Amino acid sequence: MESWVDGQPADVLSLKDRGLAYGDGLFETIAVHDGGPVLLDRHLQRLERGCRRLALNVDMNALSAELSAYARGLGNGVLKLIVTRGDSLRGYAADPLAMARRILQGSPPAAYPSTHAEQGIRLFACTVRLSEQPLLAGLKHLNRLEQVLARAEWADSEHAEGLMLDTSGRVIEGVFSNLFLVRDGVLFTADLSRCGVAGVMRAELLFQAKSQGIATQITDISLEQLHQADEVFVCNSVYGVWPVRGCGSARWSVGPLTRKLQTLARALLDA
Amino acid sequence: MESWVDGQPADVLSLKDRGLAYGDGLFETIAVHDGGPVLLDRHLQRLERGCRRLALNVDMNALSAELSAYARGLGNGVLKLIVTRGDSLRGYAADPLAMARRILQGSPPAAYPSTHAEQGIRLFACTVRLSEQPLLAGLKHLNRLEQVLARAEWADSEHAEGLMLDTSGRVIEGVFSNLFLVRDGVLFTADLSRCGVAGVMRAELLFQAKSQGIATQITDISLEQLHQADEVFVCNSVYGVWPVRGCGSARWSVGPLTRKLQTLARALLDA
Repeated sequence: MESWVDGQPADVLSLKDRGLAYGDGLFETIAVHDGGPVLLDRHLQRLERGCRRLALNVDMNALSAELSAYARGLGNGVLKLIVTRGDSLRGYAADPLAMARRILQGSPPAAYPSTHAEQGIRLFACTVRLSEQPLLAGLKHLNRLEQVLARAEWADSEHAEGLMLDTSGRVIEGVFSNLFLVRDGVLFTADLSRCGVAGVMRAELLFQAKSQGIATQITDISLEQLHQADEVFVCNSVYGVWPVRGCGSARWSVGPLTRKLQTLARALLDA
Repeated sequence: MESWVDGQPADVLSLKDRGLAYGDGLFETIAVHDGGPVLLDRHLQRLERGCRRLALNVDMNALSAELSAYARGLGNGVLKLIVTRGDSLRGYAADPLAMARRILQGSPPAAYPSTHAEQGIRLFACTVRLSEQPLLAGLKHLNRLEQVLARAEWADSEHAEGLMLDTSGRVIEGVFSNLFLVRDGVLFTADLSRCGVAGVMRAELLFQAKSQGIATQITDISLEQLHQADEVFVCNSVYGVWPVRGCGSARWSVGPLTRKLQTLARALLDA
């Protein structure tokens, strides 16, 4: 499906866009099922948090209308939304009143092997570490060189995702996923106040788990804690939940809490 | 002057460009004087270092020819070069053999008040800190949200630049400049192995100072050392050298080594 820029069909962008110049913007990757954006409210909430943090002015009414219309046209697939601070002259200074540019891009449903969800995956142990920047932590911003470098660390099909630590050695997330572990019935995921992307599926799974009386904890996680976990899984808003069976020499079996949350995620994506 | 993309006049870019999606690329801001790019060899060397670090394949022959031709057309002004990893499908993974896209943008000479160079400037003490990422440190890459946030901290004309520390509190650089200090006749500038941009003018001034028998030291710099400096100045490859007269409550006078290096930089920019 053709892309839209500020509500108009387009396949090109101004060379002056600050998204290109500085990565000055945010994005969301939204699953679309039967013409409806999945977990749209959570995506918009995260976007608004990011806009406040970066002082980006987005016309949320126009954006919401465009997202609905674009998703209807897409039917089933993945909708990528990018908002940038628009054009600027030379230099980092921006017009504080400028309105952000809205870019929508559609693609067919993600084609991952079904074995990822069914049997679980192996994580590549990335050597690229996430730097600690509390001002940007949690946001899905356009400064993604760490992920690009990490994803380039493996090319085999044996690893479906990579494990990323921060520069202090804490376990944070996957390259394009958040990570959870289960230990003694408690669901753990990394604190993302220093780095990492606070994923929409992560937030939804935490919410769903709490609703079902499952104890959850957002905390710092060490490699040792990861290795001692009873279950490990990764998630994102496109594929839902993939059980993790191994990373380096560590091995985990696919457990009941992973399967329960995977079923919940699947139901949301197919709703 | 109209921009060029891969040697062809253009004012727009593919929406699939990874520069937009991830900030997956590098840039150089090059002063052009009488049709010639100033310090071109140093710019190209830094670009090549960056390309090696990011595994970007740039056709350096084509790029050199384009830079020369574009600068001739520009005459006097500023040439901004962006190289990106080109287009990609969804996801962080890139084709390792893909050739980088080359973007050239021209603008008129920078119009800074002459008092900046003559009387010196004040630095705004930015609260935004630079995160520590050795894999990207020194490169002029397209992930510049920290600079965007830092530059938005002040809007008055009293401050011409901002001072940036890293997350550990070390003095690193300006928002769009490198920083030097002089103490007891020795020229100091920050070690940029954890963060910061290794500026072309910084490299040239270090080289020139050494050639003239001035002792230089690339080292970690504390705020206390900055405050106790005899002279402080900032530099970049467009404006040359600006003496720094103050930052917060700290005050410095404009000293002889600053003036000497400023004259050298001016001569290079006007050569």
